[in-house]
Amino acid sequence: MKIGKATLPETAICTYDEETIVVRGANLCDELIGKLGFVDYFHFLVTGRKPDAIASRVLDATLVAIAEHGLVPSVQASRMTLAAAPDAIQGAVAAGILGCGSVILGASETAGRLFLRVDATAREHALSLEAAAEVIVRELREQKQAIPGYGHPQHKARDPRVARLFAVAEEAGAPMHFVRIAEAVESVLPELTGRDLRLNVSAAIPAVLLDVGFPADALKGVPILARCAGLIGHLTEELAHPIGFALSYQAAREQRYTGALPPGFTPKTAV
Amino acid sequence: MKIGKATLPETAICTYDEETIVVRGANLCDELIGKLGFVDYFHFLVTGRKPDAIASRVLDATLVAIAEHGLVPSVQASRMTLAAAPDAIQGAVAAGILGCGSVILGASETAGRLFLRVDATAREHALSLEAAAEVIVRELREQKQAIPGYGHPQHKARDPRVARLFAVAEEAGAPMHFVRIAEAVESVLPELTGRDLRLNVSAAIPAVLLDVGFPADALKGVPILARCAGLIGHLTEELAHPIGFALSYQAAREQRYTGALPPGFTPKTAV
Amino acid sequence: MKIGKATLPETAICTYDEETIVVRGANLCDELIGKLGFVDYFHFLVTGRKPDAIASRVLDATLVAIAEHGLVPSVQASRMTLAAAPDAIQGAVAAGILGCGSVILGASETAGRLFLRVDATAREHALSLEAAAEVIVRELREQKQAIPGYGHPQHKARDPRVARLFAVAEEAGAPMHFVRIAEAVESVLPELTGRDLRLNVSAAIPAVLLDVGFPADALKGVPILARCAGLIGHLTEELAHPIGFALSYQAAREQRYTGALPPGFTPKTAV
Amino acid sequence: MKIGKATLPETAICTYDEETIVVRGANLCDELIGKLGFVDYFHFLVTGRKPDAIASRVLDATLVAIAEHGLVPSVQASRMTLAAAPDAIQGAVAAGILGCGSVILGASETAGRLFLRVDATAREHALSLEAAAEVIVRELREQKQAIPGYGHPQHKARDPRVARLFAVAEEAGAPMHFVRIAEAVESVLPELTGRDLRLNVSAAIPAVLLDVGFPADALKGVPILARCAGLIGHLTEELAHPIGFALSYQAAREQRYTGALPPGFTPKTAV
Repeated sequence: MKIGKATLPETAICTYDEETIVVRGANLCDELIGKLGFVDYFHFLVTGRKPDAIASRVLDATLVAIAEHGLVPSVQASRMTLAAAPDAIQGAVAAGILGCGSVILGASETAGRLFLRVDATAREHALSLEAAAEVIVRELREQKQAIPGYGHPQHKARDPRVARLFAVAEEAGAPMHFVRIAEAVESVLPELTGRDLRLNVSAAIPAVLLDVGFPADALKGVPILARCAGLIGHLTEELAHPIGFALSYQAAREQRYTGALPPGFTPKTAV
Repeated sequence: MKIGKATLPETAICTYDEETIVVRGANLCDELIGKLGFVDYFHFLVTGRKPDAIASRVLDATLVAIAEHGLVPSVQASRMTLAAAPDAIQGAVAAGILGCGSVILGASETAGRLFLRVDATAREHALSLEAAAEVIVRELREQKQAIPGYGHPQHKARDPRVARLFAVAEEAGAPMHFVRIAEAVESVLPELTGRDLRLNVSAAIPAVLLDVGFPADALKGVPILARCAGLIGHLTEELAHPIGFALSYQAAREQRYTGALPPGFTPKTAV
Repeated sequence: MKIGKATLPETAICTYDEETIVVRGANLCDELIGKLGFVDYFHFLVTGRKPDAIASRVLDATLVAIAEHGLVPSVQASRMTLAAAPDAIQGAVAAGILGCGSVILGASETAGRLFLRVDATAREHALSLEAAAEVIVRELREQKQAIPGYGHPQHKARDPRVARLFAVAEEAGAPMHFVRIAEAVESVLPELTGRDLRLNVSAAIPAVLLDVGFPADALKGVPILARCAGLIGHLTEELAHPIGFALSYQAAREQRYTGALPPGFTPKTAV
Repeated sequence: MKIGKATLPETAICTYDEETIVVRGANLCDELIGKLGFVDYFHFLVTGRKPDAIASRVLDATLVAIAEHGLVPSVQASRMTLAAAPDAIQGAVAAGILGCGSVILGASETAGRLFLRVDATAREHALSLEAAAEVIVRELREQKQAIPGYGHPQHKARDPRVARLFAVAEEAGAPMHFVRIAEAVESVLPELTGRDLRLNVSAAIPAVLLDVGFPADALKGVPILARCAGLIGHLTEELAHPIGFALSYQAAREQRYTGALPPGFTPKTAV
């Protein structure tokens, strides 16, 4: 590895001296604490810009929408981890956040990238949003890729959070362009996939956030921050009313062992 | 393990059916998204109660105060992790959160428990806060335990966030009882420890939060949630301007190997 | 922070130049790869010493003993995490390792420290091991601390791994001093705790390892390394035969919601 | 989610009753502890088969080869995490394992998949290994994908571990087919990439492991298990001789802040 300028770490986020902490060009104590709300501060940290009133309201609503949905797998993993390691709440939060992957909460980012492709295709080829959505969904289908952000195991009809997020965005005065793209994709899915897959919250979040200028690269951070809040709620409950081991007991009590058994061995007690 | 009521997991946080998601007794879509801010929702998730205006303002300020302080160890660990595993941003966030331990951000909780002990001792023995602080600090010293939340390597004088958080709490109308306890502890430290250790942000946070009724068991969640926001800011920067490997290069370039060497081996290049 | 010698990182584990990698004073390629087995290398990395034949055999047996015990909570957490984030197997391993805490696998370390206290007490006061065990167990009971490494939810009689590990140690020629201490503790528990708690694998492991000179500070590393192997087995199965979501479904399907409900809301479908 | 067979978790790895633990069809206590070495047990857990002598020797050598290479980024992240959260060694191990991603240790798996493609192409089109390597490398180049497992920042000539692993495999009697594929890829790289990229350890590992029948899906587990051992070595050193904060100090001390500054602010002390 060469020694030189390229190996000097640079950051534009924070610097400080003994008396002053500077974040994104602002004095943390004089200009931010108690003056900028935490959600706006999150936007400021991530983008370097304070959100306008529309972006602030929409970002806040997405964080509330995705923070909590009961004993989902990542919450279970987190509560089981706290039960086993109660002294290290940060480990239990980390275990829960590790479940924010491509299949679950990561769809916020991949759906956002899908909408950007539809948008670019519509512009480039002067297509309607529906026509562009059809082009892109066909491409994904040909490459045998999933369509992220549509369908929900618990909410067969449209996930109720979708309409609410769209209403909040509209009331706030968001342009609703990417919302229309998200709906255009939804409209072409039955014919192209043979399944009536409806928008879920993981597609609604990038739709409303791209409309207010939130960067695509930071989309995955929104469900992660939101779930962090949800996890802390669950772990506080776990400390007072532990269910981590009960969850684990339930999870495994009807398990089937499909492997070989030693000669003559019959389990004497059901596992 | 017995099968029975004790092994049925119970939670008071969330339930749902196909059309409705209920969180802490409220309809998520009708009553919370777009109506309750994310910080207040965090309070609601953790405590089951919506904060009053004072608690809301104070909690928000603490989250802003502790979210970001530059390239601290947990941020470095997180950015190095993203450099090595760029596809898994959730893993990099988790690595950063794992550094929110007893030595660093965990002091928020342990300082909070210290203040509660001072408070209980003052009430029980009808002592002044200073006298009670002296009793408890002496006890900690005798047990060779550290005093959490005092002293800061970068801010020798009082951490500037302390005064600002206290001002926000006072402006908001907080009772300032635990703030006085935090200051009482600060006042007895020079004599009892021989060092002029000043309040740092990790003591200011529990002081102002206990004053607005935030539960001690959830105190550690505040710096974790805040740092999660800071980490997402850093990881978004890392994706655009990577420094993870540069940080690692700098960290190790002056390392000293203190172990044995094989006979005849002289490193040909400095490591 | 001062700049100086104290801030220069030192390590005695590894150095290298372009052609040679030195680990603990040995040439990795010439002396270790293909010459020292992985278990002995683990001992070498941790202690700086290659194990003798007795220590090698005992350490190897402990790693095999604790690597796998079915769908325990940390395995469930790990498999759920892979189901949600299948691209990041390292994240699923990490989630599983985060469950190696004080309540579960961490007992190997705390039981080891208990045995060292019994040993020190016996020496200092010229007591029999049983008498020293009684002194220490009484102390733990008075401080309302748990006795780590005794009792097992699935193995009410002695955990079968205990006798096997003790037999391996004896056959290998280990001194069996700490094994006798572990049994001395077991013998005093019925009277002092009122419960017939038998040695479990987490007490057997430190007993046999302390007997072969394995350092107490590294005891917790043994179950962590062992479980890492077990987790990789489970995650390889998960990739081929996924059960992560099935585990989560089972875990939550009999959950009880104990919180409030919005007026007029009756869940239309069972969760 | 439907209730039924599909939601019952199945596993072929482990079952047990009160007296017996069965792993992969064998009685853990009677047949495995003290009889099967840990490395062979890892193979057994992952594949369901005990390795033959050749596979055992090769797998063991790969684990030794990749366990330790000094203060690499994941080790730094792990030691910083322990410094901040010293009570939770499992958290520090997890943080280190989270750095086993696509860019660093994950190359073992992706290089393995590359070799399998070369093998399949050679068979399908009756090509020499060199010709097949050329076809596949060209494809990767056209898709702008990296060639995993070639080139090393510290070892410009061939990583010394490569020749050693190949020698161990040959001595053990491995077929050396995938080793030849790995070398065929190496031979075409200068012409196709314009760079003299040599085999590194992350390509040598899958080459020798595929030759002994180790499954491609489990390749990533080998560096993860190996590094777990290395991390435990470093964390044991960290507990005795802490350098986590020194590493962090060094990493950041030459940082450049490239963001804006508040009007009139000049940092009074260098950061």
